[in-house]
This record gives sequence, C-alpha cells and structure tokens, in this order.
Amino acid sequence: MKCLIIAAGKGSRLQHRGDSKPLIPILGMPLIERVIRAAMEAGAEEFYVVIGYQGERVRLFLERLAERLAIGIVPLMNDDWDKDNGLSVLKAQGVLHEPFLLLMADHLFDPNLVRPLTTLTLEDGEIALVVDGNTRNPLVDMDDVTRVKVEDGMSNGKIRNIGKGLADFTGFDTGCFLCSTGIFKALEQSNEKDGDTTLSGAVRVLAAEGHVKAIPTDDFWIDVDDPAAFRKAEQALLNRLRDKPNDGPVARYLNRPISVRISRHLVKYNVTPNQISGFSFLCSVLGAGLFAVGGYVALLLGGVLAQFASIIDGCDGEVARLKYQSSDFGGWFDAVLDRYADAFLLFGLTWHLLAVDANGWVLFAGFMAIIGSFMLSYTADKYDNLMRDRVRAGSKGGLRMGRDVRVFLIFLGAAANLVLPVLVVIAVVMNVETVRRVRVASVD
Amino acid sequence: MKCLIIAAGKGSRLQHRGDSKPLIPILGMPLIERVIRAAMEAGAEEFYVVIGYQGERVRLFLERLAERLAIGIVPLMNDDWDKDNGLSVLKAQGVLHEPFLLLMADHLFDPNLVRPLTTLTLEDGEIALVVDGNTRNPLVDMDDVTRVKVEDGMSNGKIRNIGKGLADFTGFDTGCFLCSTGIFKALEQSNEKDGDTTLSGAVRVLAAEGHVKAIPTDDFWIDVDDPAAFRKAEQALLNRLRDKPNDGPVARYLNRPISVRISRHLVKYNVTPNQISGFSFLCSVLGAGLFAVGGYVALLLGGVLAQFASIIDGCDGEVARLKYQSSDFGGWFDAVLDRYADAFLLFGLTWHLLAVDANGWVLFAGFMAIIGSFMLSYTADKYDNLMRDRVRAGSKGGLRMGRDVRVFLIFLGAAANLVLPVLVVIAVVMNVETVRRVRVASVD
Repeated sequence: MKCLIIAAGKGSRLQHRGDSKPLIPILGMPLIERVIRAAMEAGAEEFYVVIGYQGERVRLFLERLAERLAIGIVPLMNDDWDKDNGLSVLKAQGVLHEPFLLLMADHLFDPNLVRPLTTLTLEDGEIALVVDGNTRNPLVDMDDVTRVKVEDGMSNGKIRNIGKGLADFTGFDTGCFLCSTGIFKALEQSNEKDGDTTLSGAVRVLAAEGHVKAIPTDDFWIDVDDPAAFRKAEQALLNRLRDKPNDGPVARYLNRPISVRISRHLVKYNVTPNQISGFSFLCSVLGAGLFAVGGYVALLLGGVLAQFASIIDGCDGEVARLKYQSSDFGGWFDAVLDRYADAFLLFGLTWHLLAVDANGWVLFAGFMAIIGSFMLSYTADKYDNLMRDRVRAGSKGGLRMGRDVRVFLIFLGAAANLVLPVLVVIAVVMNVETVRRVRVASVD
Repeated sequence: MKCLIIAAGKGSRLQHRGDSKPLIPILGMPLIERVIRAAMEAGAEEFYVVIGYQGERVRLFLERLAERLAIGIVPLMNDDWDKDNGLSVLKAQGVLHEPFLLLMADHLFDPNLVRPLTTLTLEDGEIALVVDGNTRNPLVDMDDVTRVKVEDGMSNGKIRNIGKGLADFTGFDTGCFLCSTGIFKALEQSNEKDGDTTLSGAVRVLAAEGHVKAIPTDDFWIDVDDPAAFRKAEQALLNRLRDKPNDGPVARYLNRPISVRISRHLVKYNVTPNQISGFSFLCSVLGAGLFAVGGYVALLLGGVLAQFASIIDGCDGEVARLKYQSSDFGGWFDAVLDRYADAFLLFGLTWHLLAVDANGWVLFAGFMAIIGSFMLSYTADKYDNLMRDRVRAGSKGGLRMGRDVRVFLIFLGAAANLVLPVLVVIAVVMNVETVRRVRVASVD
C-alpha cells in the first residue's frame, strides 16, 4: 500500500524546537520518522512525502531514512508550502493512481488506528477518514482541532460536514485518510467553486456527495502543533509504555514509573535496547558478587544494585518501543539474561549464608529458590500460551508473580539482613506457584 | 465429514487373536478404534460402521467408544457379512447422501494419508482412491493386495483398472476412498452386469467411465489380514515411534530402542502417559537422593536409576502416540517434571561432593551445571521457534544437545566415580551451548 505524507509546512509555533517541523525530534525520533514507522507497522510499504519549507534538509533526511529502513520514499516538492495544505496533496496527482493512505507529518498515531484503512474497499471517488469519537479526548486542542459531523452515529457512518469551527460535531479529524484519486478532483472543485484550497474544503465537497466514510477509532493520536501539544504528545508516548498487562505489581507501581523517566532520557542517545539489557545484567552480576563478599554493607549495596538492575531491565523494552526497535531476538535475549541474573543473585545470597554457616538446610533453601525461580519463568511462557484461549473473556485471575516481585524480595531481604527468610519465602512461593500452574493447566 | 467403515467380515486368518476381527487389539487398541481415531485426526466427524460377524459385540464396543470419544457412531448391520464387501457398502445407501470417506476396519493408515481426501471436490458420480505408488512397499503382501493401474503416471491420474490379479499395475489400493453416491449406483451396475458384488467390481465400473481419481501417497498404511501382516503392522507402528527428529544421539541410539520395547508392553495396561511421566520423575528424585547419601554404591545405583528414568521418560510420549492420547498438557507436564528432575540430580551430585569436601569451587561448579542445564532447556523452545524459519531447507546443523546427553553424562560420571569432572563438563558444555544459541540467534 502506498502512503502520502504531507510534510511541507513550517510549523512556526514549534520553531524553538527546530527549524523544520517534520525533523523535530520527539523522544529521540523526528516526527516524520515516527509517522513513517507507524504507517509501516500498519502495512504501508511505499512512501511519497510532500516537502516544502526547508525542503532540501527534509529531503536529505528522508534519503538516509529510506536507506536505513530499506523502503522507498519519494519526495515531492511543493514550492507553495506556505499556502493551504490541499495544494500539497495535489502534488501527488500525477504520481498516485490507486487508493493510498494520506497522513500528516505532525499527527502521531497508533498503527492500530490506521490499520483498518489498509483493508478497506473504496467505491469510485470515495475517501475514508479515521474519526475520533471521544469528544472529550484530553489530547485534543479544542481551539485548533478539525471537527467532524458523522451521519447515523459513529459506526459505518458517512461524514456530513468537516471544519474547525463546527458547532454541531460528533468527533475529530485524526488526519489519517484512505483516498481514491477522487480526492484530487475534489480539491480542484473546491478551489474552483469556493476558492478553498484546504484539504478540509475538498473533504467537504466529497461529503456533500456522501463520498466520505467515517472509520471510528479509540486508538491514540495527537496533532503536534504547538509547545503544549508537544509536551502532551511526549507524555502520552511515555504513558503508553506503562500500559503493560504482563507487568507484576512491583513493576507496575515501582519499577515502571522510574524506568520510564530513565528511558525518556536514554532515547536521546545512541544506546540500543540490547546494550541496556546487557548493562542491567552486569549490575545484577555485580550485585550477586557483593552478596558473596559478605558483611552487611556489601549485602545492602548488592540489594540496591539488584533492584536498580530490575528497574533498568524495564528500559530496554521501553526504548525499543519508543524507537521502533522491538525484535523477537531482543525480547528473548533479555529473558535469557534475566534467568542468569536471577540465578546469580540467589546463588550470591546462598553463598553469603554458607560462608558464615555451612549448613545443609541453607544449601537446600538456596537450591530450591533457584529452581523455583527458574520454573516460574519456564512455565510462564507455556502457561500463558495454554491459558490464553481459556481466559480470553475475563481477567488473568490473581496477581502475576514474576521477576519484579522476586528481585524486590531479594532487595528487601538484603536491606533487612534477613537473607535466609527471603530465600525460604522465594523457594516456597515460586515452587508452590509452579505446582499451582501445573494443576490449573491439568484441569481442562 | 462423514465416514463409512466396513467392519463386517470374519477375518478368519486372524482368528487365533480374537473372535471378531475389528475388535482384535493391536498394541493395546482394537483395529476399528485405530481406524476411527486416525480418521478423526484426518478430519472425519461422524461415523457409520457396517457390522456383521459378531455384530452385537462390535455394536456394543462402538457404543462405548462413541461415548468415550464424544462422537456419533451409527452401526449398520449387514447379515450377508460372509458375502462380498460391496454388499456392506450398499448398506449405507439410504443413509449417506453427500460425499463420504470409505475406509476398511482392517486397514491401518497414517492420518496424513487420508487428509487430502477431506479437501477434495468430486464431480458428480466420481470417487477417489488413495493409491500407494511404492510398488516395492515391504508392508504389502504381494499375493493378497489389490493392485491398481493409474493412467498418466501417478499424480492427478485416473484409475484405469483395479484387481488382485492385475499383471500391469502402477500401485496399490490402500482401502481409503472418498465416495460420492455414485458408488452405490456402480455397485448395482457391477452386480447386474457381471454378478460382481465386490467393491473392486464397482470401482472397475467407475474406472471404465474415467470416474475414479487416484490420490498418490507415500504415507504409512497396512492391510492387517493375516498373522504375518499383523506382526508387520505392530512393528511398523513401533518403528514410527523412533522417528523423532528432535531426539538427541543418546535418545536415538540408546534410550529409544529400549523405551519402545517397554512401551510395547505398557500399552496393554491402563497406564496413562502422565502416570509414566510421574514415575520417571520419582525414579530421578530417588536417584538424586541416592547421590546425596554418599558412598560409591549409592552413587552407582543413583546413576543407574537416573539413566533408567531417562529411558522411561521416552515411554510417556510413545504410549501417548500409540494410544492417541497426546496432549499439550501432557508434553508440558513432562517438560516441567524433567526440569525438576535435572535440577535434583545435579543438586544430588553437588551434595555428594560437598559432604566430603565443603569447597566453594565445587559449589560453584554444581550451581553452574544446574543453571546451564536449565538455560539449555529454557532456550530450546524459543531457539527452535526462532530457528525454524531459518533452517527450513537443510539440516539442524550439528548435534542436538539435550536432556538425553545430560542424564547420560550423569550416569557415566556416577558409574566411573568421576562426579566433579562430570559436573564441570555439564557446566561448561551447557552454558557454552546456551551462549552459542544466543550468538546464532543474534545474527539475523
């Protein structure tokens, strides 16, 4: 699927953040790159970008981006970039002959918002616009947003009217379209009839003919138009990182809020998620070594380092998602390192105790804690897969017991100098939970 | 899809094994149940079974089987069971009005052999027969098999002639058909014209009209007609158990040949695969306990028990496959128990050493052996999934390092009283292999 992106404007309200709006980085990635990457995830494969203000700089950036992502990006120059945005769309008239996605370089969105457009069939001359039906969306700037009036409620409706000043409206223009070439004709008609060269003008022309489908959405989108919207967008991108259903309680309420703050800064540097995984692992190994050294101070420091590593362990995935660098290998690599880190930490604690008192029960407790932690991770994948079908409707049932809790217990045990009790608690809880999972899975 | 099974005959050549041929158990399961279960795996859902000789006993068995498998099985009585098999097929004339599978109660087959029939579209009056093109198939009794002559080679051909005595033939009748109701008309015609009431007679009638499709196969099938064929079938079913691509070298050349011999007897009893998994686990735990006791005799006994448990560990899957009891849960349960068993065995060995010499290096070696074994299993699933796409064409590349090798090393170490070297070898090999997997996976 081809995709046209309008990136010609000056974006003067954001000028203090960079000369050229499409190139303004948000959380370490230029706006235009975020739009292109999100569109790629939604299914777009070939890109046409209308450039204008600072066109040469944008063109150079797109050239390098096309190489990096191994995709085609065709720049289309619009010398009238300071006029209405409909003129930018018209630049693609000679180039695009089949239905194409139309996106704005300054509208960020979740790929799921655009995905329905990629499977839609348009009648001749029709276009479709994704409409946000949440008229109280806090991410929307009510003074500046393009409003939309949809006939027959939100679902499968046609758009009746569109415009910034609309008093009677049912939703907002998200800036994500699927267009047939009818859009070009409508742009010309709108210009001839009303002298209106905005995209909204053309949409109004098509809407009057009942030719604009409204595709409802409740996915994330934001128009990054001014400093306030920029801050909102940044915060929204970060908040979305905290919305991980698999997070345990410690991850959710302690680790994630801190790691997101760290990731916010990490994205500005050229650090890969796998490097972050490796750094977290090294912290854990160092913590385990401090445990083994003996004495309370080393124990406490080791505990703090373990908990710090657990927090940092959230950053690899966060940076990956913020920079569209998520990969199967990355997730797996992180999981493998986590298993080693867990085992080393528990072995360090066991060693700490054995150095003082070479007791068989201590050894056994340490062994059972290590094996229990492993089994919990080992069963997590298979258990989750096995359960997925069964619990589709309804909650997961109970707290998710994972690494976040385990490491937090280790930290608490080290800080309180209660190593043996913590080993015993981990040994019991992890193994009991493993047995519980086997029992749950056996009842079919 | 509906399925008609002919189970009316007496099977006098196998009479020493049981009164009623369809009920003769082969590896713990009556022939007719094997046919029904294989057909179910291939996609059949509703069964019609023509019974005759000892009809009441067969009917009662089918009634209970239908309940056990929660499927419909309709018995159709054929009082002329001692006449030709075409009369049995005719019993279904009033019952089956759409294309149906036609199978023989004494022909065992791999579900993959029948599966192509379930997606085939028949022209009006047509039938299809799965034909084995391997004219040297050692499982075929050349004196008794029904031979087939296919036009235009084997693929997508039409059958030109069929019969036991055929001198010019290209393959064998596997006894697996997809029939339209044209088969009933053909049976009547064959009777009227030639007085021939065999199924082959009807197939000849249809073949003359070009109405019999040949579906080529190289999957397993066998006609269980006499004591020699019965023994061949039993051996073939057992040999198929040894054909596991995931088996490591110890499993393939040592454990599997023994476990298959054990499974052959186990299937006769009411032992479930999960019970076998549990028994194997208990043997391992007992072996680990013997390790911890100390002294060479206990060590040796523990090693033997560990290796015995590893052999028995093959039986759960074998019995499951022989009795069609494979399940996701069963495989997972077995894997979870194996991880615990591995850890206990290595912990037992570590304990064995520490009891004599409470040495930190011994503790570390034991820990690394436990963690390495775990990591190898932990990465196996994810690694295999990750690799599956990459190595589709070609071999797995190198020996598969798994539990079979690990336990065998433990056995050897115990038998040779070389516990520390074995712990070190396991620690090194398992962790190095884990790191190698990570490296291989990282190169994309």
